[in-house]
Amino acid sequence: MVPRYARPAMTAIWEPEARYRIWFEIEAHATEKLGELGVVPESAATALWDWWKTNPKIDVEAIDAKEAILKHDVIAFLDWVAEQVGPEARFMHQGMTSSDVLDTTLAVQLARASDILLEDIDLLLAALKRRAEEHKYTPTIGRSHGIHAEPVTFGLKLAQAYAEFSRCRTRLEAARAEIATCAVSGAVGTFANIAPAVEEHVAERLGLAPEPISTQVIPRDRHAMFFATLGVIASSIERVAIEVRHLQRTEVLEAEEYFSPGQKGSSAMPHKRNPVLTENLTGLARVVRGAVTPAMENVALWHERDISHSSVERFIGPDATITLDFALARLTSVVDKLLVYPERMQKNLDRMGGLVHSQRVLLALTQAGLSRDDAYRLVQRNAMKVWESDGELSLLELLKADPEVSSALSASELEEKFDLDYHFKQVDRIFERVFG
Amino acid sequence: MVPRYARPAMTAIWEPEARYRIWFEIEAHATEKLGELGVVPESAATALWDWWKTNPKIDVEAIDAKEAILKHDVIAFLDWVAEQVGPEARFMHQGMTSSDVLDTTLAVQLARASDILLEDIDLLLAALKRRAEEHKYTPTIGRSHGIHAEPVTFGLKLAQAYAEFSRCRTRLEAARAEIATCAVSGAVGTFANIAPAVEEHVAERLGLAPEPISTQVIPRDRHAMFFATLGVIASSIERVAIEVRHLQRTEVLEAEEYFSPGQKGSSAMPHKRNPVLTENLTGLARVVRGAVTPAMENVALWHERDISHSSVERFIGPDATITLDFALARLTSVVDKLLVYPERMQKNLDRMGGLVHSQRVLLALTQAGLSRDDAYRLVQRNAMKVWESDGELSLLELLKADPEVSSALSASELEEKFDLDYHFKQVDRIFERVFG
Amino acid sequence: MVPRYARPAMTAIWEPEARYRIWFEIEAHATEKLGELGVVPESAATALWDWWKTNPKIDVEAIDAKEAILKHDVIAFLDWVAEQVGPEARFMHQGMTSSDVLDTTLAVQLARASDILLEDIDLLLAALKRRAEEHKYTPTIGRSHGIHAEPVTFGLKLAQAYAEFSRCRTRLEAARAEIATCAVSGAVGTFANIAPAVEEHVAERLGLAPEPISTQVIPRDRHAMFFATLGVIASSIERVAIEVRHLQRTEVLEAEEYFSPGQKGSSAMPHKRNPVLTENLTGLARVVRGAVTPAMENVALWHERDISHSSVERFIGPDATITLDFALARLTSVVDKLLVYPERMQKNLDRMGGLVHSQRVLLALTQAGLSRDDAYRLVQRNAMKVWESDGELSLLELLKADPEVSSALSASELEEKFDLDYHFKQVDRIFERVFG
Amino acid sequence: MVPRYARPAMTAIWEPEARYRIWFEIEAHATEKLGELGVVPESAATALWDWWKTNPKIDVEAIDAKEAILKHDVIAFLDWVAEQVGPEARFMHQGMTSSDVLDTTLAVQLARASDILLEDIDLLLAALKRRAEEHKYTPTIGRSHGIHAEPVTFGLKLAQAYAEFSRCRTRLEAARAEIATCAVSGAVGTFANIAPAVEEHVAERLGLAPEPISTQVIPRDRHAMFFATLGVIASSIERVAIEVRHLQRTEVLEAEEYFSPGQKGSSAMPHKRNPVLTENLTGLARVVRGAVTPAMENVALWHERDISHSSVERFIGPDATITLDFALARLTSVVDKLLVYPERMQKNLDRMGGLVHSQRVLLALTQAGLSRDDAYRLVQRNAMKVWESDGELSLLELLKADPEVSSALSASELEEKFDLDYHFKQVDRIFERVFG
Repeated sequence: MVPRYARPAMTAIWEPEARYRIWFEIEAHATEKLGELGVVPESAATALWDWWKTNPKIDVEAIDAKEAILKHDVIAFLDWVAEQVGPEARFMHQGMTSSDVLDTTLAVQLARASDILLEDIDLLLAALKRRAEEHKYTPTIGRSHGIHAEPVTFGLKLAQAYAEFSRCRTRLEAARAEIATCAVSGAVGTFANIAPAVEEHVAERLGLAPEPISTQVIPRDRHAMFFATLGVIASSIERVAIEVRHLQRTEVLEAEEYFSPGQKGSSAMPHKRNPVLTENLTGLARVVRGAVTPAMENVALWHERDISHSSVERFIGPDATITLDFALARLTSVVDKLLVYPERMQKNLDRMGGLVHSQRVLLALTQAGLSRDDAYRLVQRNAMKVWESDGELSLLELLKADPEVSSALSASELEEKFDLDYHFKQVDRIFERVFG
Repeated sequence: MVPRYARPAMTAIWEPEARYRIWFEIEAHATEKLGELGVVPESAATALWDWWKTNPKIDVEAIDAKEAILKHDVIAFLDWVAEQVGPEARFMHQGMTSSDVLDTTLAVQLARASDILLEDIDLLLAALKRRAEEHKYTPTIGRSHGIHAEPVTFGLKLAQAYAEFSRCRTRLEAARAEIATCAVSGAVGTFANIAPAVEEHVAERLGLAPEPISTQVIPRDRHAMFFATLGVIASSIERVAIEVRHLQRTEVLEAEEYFSPGQKGSSAMPHKRNPVLTENLTGLARVVRGAVTPAMENVALWHERDISHSSVERFIGPDATITLDFALARLTSVVDKLLVYPERMQKNLDRMGGLVHSQRVLLALTQAGLSRDDAYRLVQRNAMKVWESDGELSLLELLKADPEVSSALSASELEEKFDLDYHFKQVDRIFERVFG
Repeated sequence: MVPRYARPAMTAIWEPEARYRIWFEIEAHATEKLGELGVVPESAATALWDWWKTNPKIDVEAIDAKEAILKHDVIAFLDWVAEQVGPEARFMHQGMTSSDVLDTTLAVQLARASDILLEDIDLLLAALKRRAEEHKYTPTIGRSHGIHAEPVTFGLKLAQAYAEFSRCRTRLEAARAEIATCAVSGAVGTFANIAPAVEEHVAERLGLAPEPISTQVIPRDRHAMFFATLGVIASSIERVAIEVRHLQRTEVLEAEEYFSPGQKGSSAMPHKRNPVLTENLTGLARVVRGAVTPAMENVALWHERDISHSSVERFIGPDATITLDFALARLTSVVDKLLVYPERMQKNLDRMGGLVHSQRVLLALTQAGLSRDDAYRLVQRNAMKVWESDGELSLLELLKADPEVSSALSASELEEKFDLDYHFKQVDRIFERVFG
Repeated sequence: MVPRYARPAMTAIWEPEARYRIWFEIEAHATEKLGELGVVPESAATALWDWWKTNPKIDVEAIDAKEAILKHDVIAFLDWVAEQVGPEARFMHQGMTSSDVLDTTLAVQLARASDILLEDIDLLLAALKRRAEEHKYTPTIGRSHGIHAEPVTFGLKLAQAYAEFSRCRTRLEAARAEIATCAVSGAVGTFANIAPAVEEHVAERLGLAPEPISTQVIPRDRHAMFFATLGVIASSIERVAIEVRHLQRTEVLEAEEYFSPGQKGSSAMPHKRNPVLTENLTGLARVVRGAVTPAMENVALWHERDISHSSVERFIGPDATITLDFALARLTSVVDKLLVYPERMQKNLDRMGGLVHSQRVLLALTQAGLSRDDAYRLVQRNAMKVWESDGELSLLELLKADPEVSSALSASELEEKFDLDYHFKQVDRIFERVFG
């Protein structure tokens, strides 16, 4: 976790105190059910919850000090709780294994992290939608291979991003369901010393599903799928970030990240406004993706379990969720405040002397009876002149003056092919598909 | 694609002829709808389909020769089709762009590949279920950290794998839906020169969903999610493979890959039976996972599209699907024919002198009123003696002889704690959860 | 391996016949030394080499047919050779293990592949140097964050690439040395059944170093380092590819991939010249990098060896080397034939109204006694006017007219700060550093 | 960075104060040279160094507060220094760009980190050597595919690891040289506003090499190579960790991680001694490897530079070096204190009834005139009986009793083939190769 790329709500999930609080809840819920089942005295859970209602401070340092001696984190925690609660606490953890606590806690943490990320995506979607509506019919050049192609609208670009992040939202919901399971199944998952009813009770109280079959641990294919999904979302962030960086290039300058009047750019070149936020997002996407392969390598634990996954998760659990939360929020802010320059978009659109309309002319010539090859040749020879003039010449004028073209299409027919609105007649239909 | 790790049905999907057949179908379906809409003569589609009904051979070499000259694959193909079909063919591809064909084709290929992979998983699930039922109550030692823990059954191990691959099946269905979309939206996805109805028609005929918003290309977050899912499935294969490799170790030898009587192992050590199939699967899992990051790097195409994704997909499209198909089939065969040695499992279970029952004794002592610490100390001091005897001493006998223990638990109470069936009382419940 | 991204010389290294030829040479060299040592009759090697001198065709199909029955590739090969050579062949492979042959063969293949790659880099370096010299003093704008910064020369851009690939060459030499080792050490690497002298002899004949300690296999950290190095080289290819793609953008257009007059671009937009070669290189870089993590996962083989690395290497051995060879050659061709447009570079340089010289003015103001903050403020307020005029206003003229500025710097002092050559005075020095 | 996997000396390198100290030194060295060159007053450097000699505390919070306002880290730092030193400080940073400071600082940090890692490897090598010498002739079974193969010594296993980490040391030295370069070349690397002599001076004072050609940034192929090398070293750590984990398996138990008498294992199973340190190392290896691909993705910065690499490096710079430092130290401790059980090794060696000697018998039969196939068949049929007896039968006795075998080899000849020392006759030679 790098503090400058972290926000408090997500970070709090991963702090020791939050973790210990979840531990307590798991233990107390389990003890409660064990009491109902007559395995332990019902007074045990009562004692635990009574203490909990006092809203006790979790003394992280005291627990850590115990762990340093006992070299076992859960035992250290149980010892500390027992000191606070008294003798009734000895009934805690009956028939359970440490992983029941640890893995279910991770499930709660990742589910909570998912909830924040889902909210982040919702805010991003709202920003994308607002700006897409705003620029629904703002003409801009569509580019393939970085080369001018045909006109689109700036709203369509944002609608594409909206559709992409809608998919990301669906994926994240699925990923959340993957990891939101509870295991309280004992040493090797056989429920030998604890009834499945306890697991079901704890699961229900924590909003999780019972893990159908665990083997001390919750299987790590779930987590692999979770982090893989975060990697895909990060890649979609990168896509929008790259788009903004391109639009802000000096020669393009169709949009810019918001630049506050007092902000300094480079120490050396005061005129510079750099797309540093989206460059940063490009890097953060790499960071989140970096969690994917380690998470997949975690799947093949030995036999019923080994602990190799644990250190990996101590890194990628916080890092990937905190970084993605930060990145989604930053992207939302970039989209929300993006400076958009429709005049410059129009200027760029025009700078190719109408070449972007060549496809329509090509079609019209074919429909007028020319062979595909002939039509292509005619368009290409005029297009090349425009291209070489660096936009000084106009394709429309050249075509009108080309006898082979003008014998097939009249001037007014040609002019109609250079109408921008022609390209936008389905924008409304596409918006309906995307925004419903 | 490495031939020895490839099976014909999956490989066929990726061969040039299969690709060209899909190209034709897309073009013909589109021309059909364009005819209905009056954009082109209805006779155009008729001519195309009439030719198609003759079941023509696709002359891959001729098309490739054209591409070598034209340096454009789709134009080369259209030229070749036009030569076969005659002048009506000039109406093909009206208002479309190459990517409409290429991306929709990839969708068809990946969807077909998914169908094969889903069948593969079904066969694997069937094998896992059959063997799980067979060994539902075959006792074996559960191991955490590679160390004997408590008893499980071999059926539980297989049930865990069944549950994991059931999840993989669900994930793959979702991944299939991700990539099964059709784009026929023209140069930059605006439908400027082709009505959305054409896309909807082609999609319906090919069993795809229309892509809500494309930008010449189908967005690559879909493919990233697809290949990420294959990477997770590969990791689950690795998990089972590692389990078999462990079980076949000389010192463990609880199971073995099937070994045909005539088969030679090592050239140097004729007695050796090596788990080469599951070692191979371990490697193949790495190969499939190797596709995940490149697929994610493909997401951030520039503006409306660039072509950087294409070369990546030429590798990972065939490689990841063909390899995963092979690996799933190989794993199914391994599971299906796995030699399982229950006697050896029992022997290994017994070799620890009953240490695996220590947890039950610990619980019993606590329930008999000892503090957790005292109970732990009593069990540990006897357990250590057994451990150091390398299984020669019996924990049960030592405990009976320990006065501090015997004052808390009678001999018969202690004996009851060493009963194997105690551990299996929830096996049926777990099987119900997993197999329904 | 994807044929369209493969060149014959590199591909040949990985064909079965080439592999079998190396196998034979290893076996024959070993038999020769074993003869010298008196372990086998000297006639054995004589018989082998006599047959070899007849330049026999390797019957790959016959060997494969044997392997299908024997399920062991090396035994199949030895059987086939024995059929050709006669009874003397039974002395082959004495005391050796299959891995001695397989791993040493891989070493020969990777070393040969490295030699081709080194030649590829040399050709690339030559092209970069030639073009760098050609454009040593061609002014162009340096860009940070995609934003105009200060002038550089196009030669400097190419010199940077030259320096980067010089490093890549050094790295590849080191990587070649990593994998160019020979193991002929028997079943578990103890030389129990074969003298180290045999290994030393085979190594010397094949131009390899003896592996100091092998364990049936040559340790895979060597190969991990090799493929990691290829991944870095691929990333450097991507860097140059991205640069060309940027330069070819419609709005920038300072350079273009060579475009043959007859070549069609898009089927829909005949004016388009797309940087498809460098986009392709961007994708191929992802493919080569995809080999790095699997190669690293191959390192941790179990005990003295397992075979999990083998399937991985069947993919990444050919794929990574063939693809990198193709990519280096393609990049060389791109550099060699790159269309460079100095006039457009100058036009772009000028379009910012002189803003790129602001840093020099800033320094001059500081040296004239202004505080850093004041100097910054003065430059910034004029720079912002130029920026907002979209290059219509001239920074030089605005500064001359700004009384606070002109009180510190005279008109001629200001003019001197806008001299382009000022920026290039160290170009020669840098070229010396890079090209020696 | 996860505190529990961090050691203080490495962590200190990455703390803000350490970074700011390096910043100051770079600025002061540069100012010094600028003074010598007459660009700034010589008094400037004097003022800076005079202040530095007072060993001033770096007020990280004050600098951070400035950065929050100025949104520029280097300017914030320079402002703070100016406040401490007075007006002479305004000459700092003349002609430099922020990246000159930042990139050179990263070089210093990575070089210092490398020095610690090199020391770590030296300590690991010393531990490996000591234990290898100790167990130079401790017999143990060599295993391929997890299956007993032929005898090796435990010293050989450690010698292999020693050789592997010796290679890692060499690689790390090369990686250190890769990143230990200094850039002080100004805005886009042209030295337009600062003489190359300044760079050379700063480089020399900091123990770095001047970067031959920088473009505001030091090229990131250097860092990619650096982190790739860390990934390979991590993979070698994983290899040794996996070996220890295997050896500690209940059924194998040939070695154990040191287990202090007071340490608790599992909360549920007090007899368990789990190889948690090496499992942890397995996970940490995945973490370090996770840095490799992001570092490679950082190479292709746009034009002269973009800032996307920066956020990645804020994670992987500290994380990869701190984690690797911790992992190397942990591995050294594991090796140093490893509990080795020669008796158990012998017991395991013996449990296969002599099968591990079958290769020698096979060779002897061939040398006695049998065909390879016949020899193989004879050995295999007896070996299978031993195998199926689970080590109850003795291969030697069966061979003696097999008339086809005994007609080729006498009893004493057979007995000689079962001599363990035969396998160790080259151990000394191998040790010489490895340890020199």
